[in-house]
Amino acid sequence: MRMNQLLGMRFKETPAECQIASHIFMVRGGFIKNVGSGIFSLYMPAKRITQKIEAIIRQEMDRIGGQEVLFPVVMPAVLWKESGRYESVGSELVRFKDRNDVDMVLGMTHEEAVVHLARDAARSYINYPFMVYQIQTKFRDEPRARGGLIRVREFTMKDAYSFHTSQKDLEGYYERCYQAYERIFARTGVPEVISVQSDSGMMGGKVAHEFMLLTDVGEDTLVVCGACDYRSNMEVAECVTAKTEAGDRELTLVATPRQKTIEEVCGFLQVAPDRLCKAVIYRKNTDNGAVIVFIRGDLDVNETKLRNFLGEEIHPAESEADSAIAFGYVGPIQLNAKATVLFDTSLMGAKNLVCGANQDGFHYTGFSIERDLDGPVRHHDFAKAYNGGVCPKCGKPDITLKRGIEVGNIFQLGTNYTRAMDMQYTDQDGASQYPIMGCYGIGVGRLMASVCEVRHDAYGPIWPMSIAPWQVHICALRSDNGEVRTVAEELYDALLSAGVEVLYDDRPVSAGVMFSDADLLGVPLRIVASPKTIGRGVVEITKRDKTFSGDVGMRDAAETVISLVKEMLDEYR
Amino acid sequence: MRMNQLLGMRFKETPAECQIASHIFMVRGGFIKNVGSGIFSLYMPAKRITQKIEAIIRQEMDRIGGQEVLFPVVMPAVLWKESGRYESVGSELVRFKDRNDVDMVLGMTHEEAVVHLARDAARSYINYPFMVYQIQTKFRDEPRARGGLIRVREFTMKDAYSFHTSQKDLEGYYERCYQAYERIFARTGVPEVISVQSDSGMMGGKVAHEFMLLTDVGEDTLVVCGACDYRSNMEVAECVTAKTEAGDRELTLVATPRQKTIEEVCGFLQVAPDRLCKAVIYRKNTDNGAVIVFIRGDLDVNETKLRNFLGEEIHPAESEADSAIAFGYVGPIQLNAKATVLFDTSLMGAKNLVCGANQDGFHYTGFSIERDLDGPVRHHDFAKAYNGGVCPKCGKPDITLKRGIEVGNIFQLGTNYTRAMDMQYTDQDGASQYPIMGCYGIGVGRLMASVCEVRHDAYGPIWPMSIAPWQVHICALRSDNGEVRTVAEELYDALLSAGVEVLYDDRPVSAGVMFSDADLLGVPLRIVASPKTIGRGVVEITKRDKTFSGDVGMRDAAETVISLVKEMLDEYR
Repeated sequence: MRMNQLLGMRFKETPAECQIASHIFMVRGGFIKNVGSGIFSLYMPAKRITQKIEAIIRQEMDRIGGQEVLFPVVMPAVLWKESGRYESVGSELVRFKDRNDVDMVLGMTHEEAVVHLARDAARSYINYPFMVYQIQTKFRDEPRARGGLIRVREFTMKDAYSFHTSQKDLEGYYERCYQAYERIFARTGVPEVISVQSDSGMMGGKVAHEFMLLTDVGEDTLVVCGACDYRSNMEVAECVTAKTEAGDRELTLVATPRQKTIEEVCGFLQVAPDRLCKAVIYRKNTDNGAVIVFIRGDLDVNETKLRNFLGEEIHPAESEADSAIAFGYVGPIQLNAKATVLFDTSLMGAKNLVCGANQDGFHYTGFSIERDLDGPVRHHDFAKAYNGGVCPKCGKPDITLKRGIEVGNIFQLGTNYTRAMDMQYTDQDGASQYPIMGCYGIGVGRLMASVCEVRHDAYGPIWPMSIAPWQVHICALRSDNGEVRTVAEELYDALLSAGVEVLYDDRPVSAGVMFSDADLLGVPLRIVASPKTIGRGVVEITKRDKTFSGDVGMRDAAETVISLVKEMLDEYR
Repeated sequence: MRMNQLLGMRFKETPAECQIASHIFMVRGGFIKNVGSGIFSLYMPAKRITQKIEAIIRQEMDRIGGQEVLFPVVMPAVLWKESGRYESVGSELVRFKDRNDVDMVLGMTHEEAVVHLARDAARSYINYPFMVYQIQTKFRDEPRARGGLIRVREFTMKDAYSFHTSQKDLEGYYERCYQAYERIFARTGVPEVISVQSDSGMMGGKVAHEFMLLTDVGEDTLVVCGACDYRSNMEVAECVTAKTEAGDRELTLVATPRQKTIEEVCGFLQVAPDRLCKAVIYRKNTDNGAVIVFIRGDLDVNETKLRNFLGEEIHPAESEADSAIAFGYVGPIQLNAKATVLFDTSLMGAKNLVCGANQDGFHYTGFSIERDLDGPVRHHDFAKAYNGGVCPKCGKPDITLKRGIEVGNIFQLGTNYTRAMDMQYTDQDGASQYPIMGCYGIGVGRLMASVCEVRHDAYGPIWPMSIAPWQVHICALRSDNGEVRTVAEELYDALLSAGVEVLYDDRPVSAGVMFSDADLLGVPLRIVASPKTIGRGVVEITKRDKTFSGDVGMRDAAETVISLVKEMLDEYR
């Protein structure tokens, strides 16, 4: 490809809307163009990167027996009504009516489509197991698209679906897919991707893992143990709290006028936050019913765990003047408000706490949960894990929180979809059974941006050879010089003939412009030919990651570059 | 690939909804599954065929300097408002509102998106010419989806867009693209595709060609001259009528009670249809204004030509009781109805005609158009071409009408979009100019179905080697026989190692089932190993198109097949 024909602008200024490195460089380097909120067009360099990522994903999916298929982007809503998701999924699912007034949806994931494709075709146990996948455009109407290709509304995704006749078979396949994912991330140049336990969200199902690339700009919070291999998404991480020892004291009503927040009460009563029994109040989205969670004062409620426990959507309650709930003074003793009342495990057996007295301006001190409440109290895990917390796996207080970008996920779905959509097969004994499903996703564009996020310097992306838009970038400085032109073009032709992917820049621009454009394109190997290098009988070869730079004799250049490309490709096999 | 793992059903019965061969075989062979009106999922064999077609298209687009990009499926309507198509395109354009109440559309073609992508990036003449293309999912809400993949609502399309600084440059590139299209159709196995002049429809622009595969099930009518190379889509074909000689007669009012249709009037007055001056009445979609076209009685109005002449949408008028128009008796003499009145060229200089007298139950005879109408009459070409008509190019009466499937199209768009969306560049003299565009489409799924439509026998598709889902199909009959198994599996492994694409069937089914499934899959080369062939020390090799069948020694089989595959691939290079 000749640089002077390549469509796209490269420039120095950071656009106002770009906050993170991958977004900045992919806009500044002429990789992507914003079309609307969370919607992008890809220029040729980005298209080439995603094609290489897709080819790697295809190879690894085929290697574990996947069959590539294609589902529709637009689907009749009737399929989503069968699964129940037409009602259960929120406004991220685009719904519209076609010209015949038929309800349609835009596919954001394809469990319904795959069950539709497979349910007539896999009616006997001998058809199992099987896995189908597609690489296709999806649309999810995200409320907050941001970060360039990291969180978009339209995206290209590889989604795979496996079908099994036993949980054991699913688990075995799930493990093979897990390993395929590790190979995919290693081959696309981000071997540091880790897997964490995760919430299965709207997918349903129980066991799920996310593949996370650790970076401060990640949207997800991860809970990682420094002492063992425990890793979990914050959303589902168990919070284990070391018990604070305290003896019983007498339950005493104390006046705490205008002391409502944890800070105010702690300051006023001179106690540490972990001596408080805090009330956190939510409302159910369905019927606005109150949910009160009592939790140790130094901890926060993990709303995903609460939501999963309740099995329904909730939102934080605002202080309400006209309410039976004494906001700021809610406590578990004689709580007469009509509400679902829950206790976090951090309060299990706790003694000598401060809690609200359910009347404006008063708290209790000396509250001992088991002594002072009627009947047995049941505790559940609702707290957010925190830095320095106790690892639920090894028990050491070595938990740290990190940020990560989710680049892939795998779910054990069970029979949720096959039951809802009545997909059955006949087993060896002639009985009807529902197949057990797994599903496996990777966002292609997000993976490209994530690689850029962790593989760049101050000047632009440093694409791994396995997914680089081109393998070699020839910079012919002063190509009006006949010798430079001859050397550069011969090299260009020789490399192309050898099957090397070359971007060739012979524009009449300054060395500064040519090199900063090359930095922004991030091609892993650069060859510079200039009157100076030709004068010395050499061209200059540089790696984009700055680990190598040196002169090579003009005659040997093609051969050297060909073997360098091969060597660098081999790193990702 | 092992047949026992391949998802998809193959069966004998023709499904009720399938009318044409490609639809029948692609459903019966487990290639596609209907998800909704005009919406299909593709099973693995169809996905593999489309991938090969896409690879051929990519190669040919790259060869003429194309840059592959990717546009969004979902676009903000604001882009389509800029071009004016948000209003001008009918309900085939899907419009919806996103969660923030922003108007969105589903891309059915991407002129707006490409101008958006290019307008900042190509501001100087030195950036020109360039061509970008994508291969992507589109949705067009067709009123009548039918024929399997021939006319769908969701489809994968290669759409390319070129930008030029002069009409001459566009024309040169248009010719290169035309040749690339000829190579694409030859390489995908349908070299008989012809090109015809066509209407540019909602694309705008003047010169356009469609690439047509002739088949009786085609939706388009083509006008082809048997004496020269004139070929046109009916929609734009000029209709040349031989003049029928007749002398002047006296204009006479005659009673024709209850004689309204052409047949009735001809029968009643004992004249041939070509002696009638017929009135065909339309209404404008915008303001319901009447449009009356006078045309020779044996001819029909070509509504596309009429629409293009008027520059607006029209629909046939229904007989209206309460109207100034005397339906059935409309004629050009003293026509007082408020209407746009048009004359077809077939009436130019015509004499001694029968025409309506604009009063119920009366016609005129002896009508001579130039003598009997006030002022000069202007004629235009509104008639449909017909079998046996006169060729507008060579003048011989050798026109025949044929049916064809449109598998591709190319348009010279001009500056319609660049003007509407204000894309400008600076020319060599520093002046601002609008670039001139061309656009070039191929429907991938339709091309696959079209190949099946013209390459099949009574038992299934006969895929060309270049796009076949697999190159070789091994049928191991009685694979419970150890020798059969050994020979078949060794052959399978040897072919896979040589890079041959093999489908391997060792299911415990009868020869009848195995062969009819193989016929339905349409793989071009078949190898049969059975106890009988092994007894003779051979395997049987057959071409799916029945042009070859013979025994090959077991030891030579792999080598023979490898060279046959190569030979058959070479036919499409």
